[in-house]
Amino acid sequence: MTAARSPRRADPGRRDRILESCLDVVADVGVDGTTHRRVAVAADVPLGSMTYHFDGMDELLLEAFALFADRVAERFRRRLAGDLTPQEARRAVVEIVTHDVVGSQRDLVLTHELYTLAARRPEYRSITQAWMARSRAALEQHFDPETARLLDALIEGLTIHRALDPEPADEDVVATAVGRIVRPG
Amino acid sequence: MTAARSPRRADPGRRDRILESCLDVVADVGVDGTTHRRVAVAADVPLGSMTYHFDGMDELLLEAFALFADRVAERFRRRLAGDLTPQEARRAVVEIVTHDVVGSQRDLVLTHELYTLAARRPEYRSITQAWMARSRAALEQHFDPETARLLDALIEGLTIHRALDPEPADEDVVATAVGRIVRPG
Repeated sequence: MTAARSPRRADPGRRDRILESCLDVVADVGVDGTTHRRVAVAADVPLGSMTYHFDGMDELLLEAFALFADRVAERFRRRLAGDLTPQEARRAVVEIVTHDVVGSQRDLVLTHELYTLAARRPEYRSITQAWMARSRAALEQHFDPETARLLDALIEGLTIHRALDPEPADEDVVATAVGRIVRPG
Repeated sequence: MTAARSPRRADPGRRDRILESCLDVVADVGVDGTTHRRVAVAADVPLGSMTYHFDGMDELLLEAFALFADRVAERFRRRLAGDLTPQEARRAVVEIVTHDVVGSQRDLVLTHELYTLAARRPEYRSITQAWMARSRAALEQHFDPETARLLDALIEGLTIHRALDPEPADEDVVATAVGRIVRPG
């Protein structure tokens, strides 16, 4: 068996590299501008290798966005992992808003691209739903389920507005919001 | 002067109809699938009339999204207009979340399309910034500026999560969230 007939074994990281490059291309030119050719160039793989690994652009995009959501959810989970005091847990939520998502322009664009797909197509809604479930589970380690749900929505809104705002809410403002949601008046 | 040489006077609503149809097409096929031809068909105008009214697709999209944001901001403002008791103002915020945006699949898709553009391009960020400023001004008629800012972010997050969630937060949950943000513990 030659390497040419077994690209998976010859280049074991190739599939992951294609997914990663697919996200790069989407962040750069948008979902509709993303073609097999552009992803192949970005991943530095032969065009034929794309169809070997993925049954068309739909499967590629779906797996790429699943990988993206998985990674952001894992970062979220790690911030809230372990035994935290109530104060540390609130602090972790503030850091998720102020450091994790808006920190990267690429992640912001990818999130909006994914939400746009999810608004139209149920298969992408499965990705966003699984992502939301994981965020809430991570929050529920430290907060009751209703508070976890509200905090998750607050994190979403603050993150989006911080990215759009010419004068983004600073850490103190975010901490105030988190404090209000966590401690009902 | 013939009607053919003066399409604006012959069909005074034509420009607005093109903008409206542009939003329909974007909601249907996305920004990248939106072409002069598709919008012309949707608006029932000759293709040549597109270039008469708009200097290219960029100007058309920018004006269409400005119209969209203006309309949503105006609906938001009306919900909060007039002398409201504190309870009525909180109630109005709950209704914005539960009735205004998610109520229409079209508006949801258009919002995400606009945010995706705004994440990449400053000229669209001007639209979202003006929109955000109007929402906050409407909220500031009833709440202090910091609370208005936090409510606006909460509305954003709850609206997006309600649209993605297979079991959307009901009015009671939304009212709880609004109550917590408004009345610090």
